[in-house]
Formats: sequence, structure tokens, C-alpha cells
Amino acid sequence: MKYTVLRAVALSSAATLAVLPLAVGVAQAPAEIVAAAPRSAWTPIPADSLLVMDLAPNRAGKKRQIVIQLMPAPFAAGHIVNIKALARSHWWDGTSVNRVQDNYVVQWGDATEKKALPKDLVRVADSEYVVAAGALPADAGPGAPSGKGATAAASIAGTITPAAPDGWHDRDSYAPWVAVHAGWPIASDRNSVWPVHCYGMVGVGRDLSPDTGTGAELYVVIGQAPRQLDRNIALVGRVIAGIEHLSALPRGTGALGFYKTAAERTPIRSVRLASEIPAAARPRFEYLSDHSVEFARYVAARANRKDAFYARPAGAIDICNIVPPVRVVAN
Amino acid sequence: MKYTVLRAVALSSAATLAVLPLAVGVAQAPAEIVAAAPRSAWTPIPADSLLVMDLAPNRAGKKRQIVIQLMPAPFAAGHIVNIKALARSHWWDGTSVNRVQDNYVVQWGDATEKKALPKDLVRVADSEYVVAAGALPADAGPGAPSGKGATAAASIAGTITPAAPDGWHDRDSYAPWVAVHAGWPIASDRNSVWPVHCYGMVGVGRDLSPDTGTGAELYVVIGQAPRQLDRNIALVGRVIAGIEHLSALPRGTGALGFYKTAAERTPIRSVRLASEIPAAARPRFEYLSDHSVEFARYVAARANRKDAFYARPAGAIDICNIVPPVRVVAN
Repeated sequence: MKYTVLRAVALSSAATLAVLPLAVGVAQAPAEIVAAAPRSAWTPIPADSLLVMDLAPNRAGKKRQIVIQLMPAPFAAGHIVNIKALARSHWWDGTSVNRVQDNYVVQWGDATEKKALPKDLVRVADSEYVVAAGALPADAGPGAPSGKGATAAASIAGTITPAAPDGWHDRDSYAPWVAVHAGWPIASDRNSVWPVHCYGMVGVGRDLSPDTGTGAELYVVIGQAPRQLDRNIALVGRVIAGIEHLSALPRGTGALGFYKTAAERTPIRSVRLASEIPAAARPRFEYLSDHSVEFARYVAARANRKDAFYARPAGAIDICNIVPPVRVVAN
Repeated sequence: MKYTVLRAVALSSAATLAVLPLAVGVAQAPAEIVAAAPRSAWTPIPADSLLVMDLAPNRAGKKRQIVIQLMPAPFAAGHIVNIKALARSHWWDGTSVNRVQDNYVVQWGDATEKKALPKDLVRVADSEYVVAAGALPADAGPGAPSGKGATAAASIAGTITPAAPDGWHDRDSYAPWVAVHAGWPIASDRNSVWPVHCYGMVGVGRDLSPDTGTGAELYVVIGQAPRQLDRNIALVGRVIAGIEHLSALPRGTGALGFYKTAAERTPIRSVRLASEIPAAARPRFEYLSDHSVEFARYVAARANRKDAFYARPAGAIDICNIVPPVRVVAN
């Protein structure tokens, strides 16, 4: 009774992995599988796909750095061109976090709504919210979620495959089919593929349709996946480090969580592409490849917790509960 | 471009409802439906089902009050007996919030793990994590989610009904069937019914199974629904006011989000049942009844956003995105 659930699990985690084979009866926890994954299971994230945002230090003078991984082509290609241009022009420097709505989003950008944008931003069509199923590169690796990599790849590249008996891909509340592809949570129907709004995903604020936003106003999900936004707004990436500097900010008390006063806003010192930061100071990350056997085991373990704490495995998983683990690479 | 999505929606919300009938082509937003619901659609929450938790004031000296609605019988009956006993004995006064793990839970109780518990607490069996399908009172009201109230009631009381063509009840990732029952998000299979881990739901920390916890250590979900915990741990209620006083606390930097130092913990001043607070000072709440036509319309609107911002209705909903709205009743 004194130790709470997860505290007890923590005490038995990484350190015991090597001496606790699966056959013993207490299965590995997802975090143990990740901790034990070999280097080859990890895929580096390119420096020009990382957006590094520094907020003003907190009250205690501590640094607050957030790192966002941008999606690879063909997803959100137009918006990502804009976002890179905005970062290169240092456009976000001096802007602020303006909105924090509990169980929904944190949003940042120019609170004055008067700051001139770079002239070369592209206007993005809302058709870019989805990608044609055939446009996605086939994702054929040595392994994949639930061991169905080849099937998943075929599905993404072509038509949707019927549900496998033990598959989780077709048990989504919102889409006919879901998967993790090249590190990203995606959904699909027969014709198209789109990224989904999970906790930590970053999207582009916009005005009423057909406006799609420029990419200057961004938000991150900090609550239950607002999947109703899928295909209605552009997703461009996800926060892979420092989300607590956004998710733990005071909630705004104005409509939709906007701060009522300028004093409540958190200043943004700078936003840079990691590729523009000197190599020695550059943050580096890698994600657990969805082609790896370890990722397949991670998904299976998340869906069927048999480690010490769990008495009743769910036998199921939600796409937003298996967004790939990310870790820091030492410089 | 200047107004972001939801800001534009806010400007057109409640105030314009009366002059914007559905026939105009821009459908009501969920919040507009809730704002227009008549008094008869709201169900009062009994004062002895409300747990009122006062944290120490924040840095600015502002009050931080959290209100938790406890689940009605037959759910979690044993734990709720304990929780009421703990509140009546003022057991939580002087304890603290000890753990904040991003995208997971905030947890509170006795950090010393040495405080004596009231002697009359009951020991709860883990069989109480679920309720036999037949044990739940039939929930036959004048209306219900998607207009399928009678079907839902029959399902809960007996066997699971086959999916209705336009139903959302059978599109859950984790359970054969989900619904809102008497104000609570629940899941069900042929034999049993159980509450589900949505954002804001409150559960009972425990040690390894078969321990089920006493109810003295509680947590609230502050991220993507950790549905793998369903049927593995007791859910006892949900936070209906003041969740921002917990969800926006600094994340703990120890294992599992526990604070490393006592200074980081947030003191709990008092926890009381609302029924023990003098009537004039007692907080009062009501929820939008799942029997009401307005709740059915709310669910339909959440599943098919056709208000100004949305270009592509999802045609689907997750159980955790339709936890019933709650509002304050003026004293």
C-alpha cells in the first residue's frame, strides 16, 4: 500500500532487465524494452528537421528549451518550407506563448498580430492536410509494429489491408487504419494518409477555412488527442524534448485559454533550426525505429502489459499511446 | 491568418446562438449546444459526492481549490466508503501533491508514507474494478448519446447490442463497447462494465497486485487516456473544477515524476466532502444529463463538427472526448 503502482514498477525497471528474461513470467515493461534496444534500433533525426525554441528563463533563472522534430516530406511540405524560412529569419525571436488551454493546446506566435512576415512564404492549399496513399515511400523494414511491417507498408502505399486478427491498426475510433510510419503516428483510408493529433504533436494555427495558416502561429497538443482536428489543420511535427516547459505553464483565463494580459505571456528568446546552431552546442536526438524488432516488442508490451504491476493486460492500444520513444544523443 | 482557428470560433460562440439557427448552414458548435441547454437538461451532483480539496495558495496568494465528483454506486463502492472516511477524519490535511508526470498523472497523499490511516478502512478486492453487467441500474431516459439511449441501457443491463450503423459505441480501441452512463465514461464487454481512464479521471494508487490501495493515495489523469490502466486500478471519480491547479504544476524530475525534494511538493490544506461545508460556502455543480436531447446533440456535434472552423467533420468520436460538461450552480 505504501508504494504506489508506478513507483513499485520504477524500482524494478531498467537495472533488473539483464537478469530477468521473459521466460521468468514477469514480462519486460515497455521502458525496459526501450532501454535495452541496441544502437542499431535507433534512427538519428537530421539537424535540419529540429526546431530549437528557447523561452525566457523561469523565475529561478533556469533555461527552458523545447525541441520540435519537423515531419519529413511528403507531409506538410509547404508549411515546413515556411517554418524553416521563419526560423532562418529569426522571426519568432521576441514573440511569445500566448495561449494555454487545459486538456487542449499551448499556442505561440506574434501576440500583436502585426509583425510582418517574411515575403517568401508559400500559400499552402488545404489539400496538403493529407497525402495520397501512393505518394508515401514504401516502408519495408526488417520488422515493424506487431511484426506486420510488410503489410503496413503495402497498405500505406496502396489499398488498406483487411484487419489482422491480432492487429491494432484497424481498431482506431477515428480512422479505418492507423500505424506508425517513419517515426510518426498516421491514419489512413483507401485513398489518403494523414498525421494524427496526439499529445505533443505540433500544428499550424489558422483562420477560418480555406485559410491554412502560414506556420508562424504554432500550437502543441497537451491533452486527450483532439482527433477531430485531423485533416482540418496542418500538423507539422512534435515536441521531443522540453514539453514540460509548455504543458506546465499557467492556463490562460481568457476565452480559449488566451492570456488576458501581456504580463502573463512567456517570452520566446529564440527559435533556430538545429542545423544553424554550432555543432558543439547542437542538440541531437534519435528515435526508436518503427522498423526495429524492439519497436514491435515495445508496441506489443504497451498493448499487453504483463510486467509486475498489471493484472489484466488490455490486449489493445491506441495510436497515441505508441508514439515512438526519442532519446538524446550525446555530443 | 491573424485569428487562429479557435479564436475565430470563440468570437462567434454563445452570443450568436439565438440568431444562428441550424438551417443557416453553419451548425452549432458543441459549446453553443451546452450553453443553450435548458435547466431541465442538467442533473445536480449530490453534495456528499463532492470532494473539495484546497491546496496552499499559490505564490500570488491566490486560492487553489479542486473539486472531485465521486462515482455513484455500484462503481468503486468500497474505495468510496474509504475516501469519505478519510475526508471526514481530515486525513489529507497537511499531506501534499508528490508527483507530476507529464502526459500521465498528478498524484497526492502522504509523502512520508508513515501517517496512520483511520482504523475502519475496508480492504477492497480487485474484483471491484469492474461491475457485473446486470448490476447496473437500467439507464432508460428520454434521450441519450446518438439517440440510442434505450439500446445503450439494454446493453449495459444485459448483453452487448450489435453496432448500430452510425454508432460510436463500438469503435473504441480498447473495449468492445463504450458509453456515457449517469455522467460517467464507461466501457463494457458481455459480462461486465467498468469506468475508463480519461483526462481528469481520479484513481487510487496501489502497490503491486493483489493490493488495491486504500484510497488515501489518489491520482488524476493529465494526458492521453492511459486506458491500459482500465480494470487494473480503481477509478473513483473525476476532477470537475480546478484541474489547472494540478495539471499546471511543475513536473517532478525524479523517477515517474516524483518530486526529488520536499520543497517541491504542494501542500494540501484540507480535503472535505461538500456536504460537510456550511451550505452558504458549499460549491455546487450539475452535469449535462446523458438522458437529455442536448447531450445527444452535443455528442453528435463533437463527432461531426460543422461549425465555422471545421472543413471536414470526423464522423467519429472517442469516449474520452465526450465526458459530460459540468457547470457551477450559483449558491
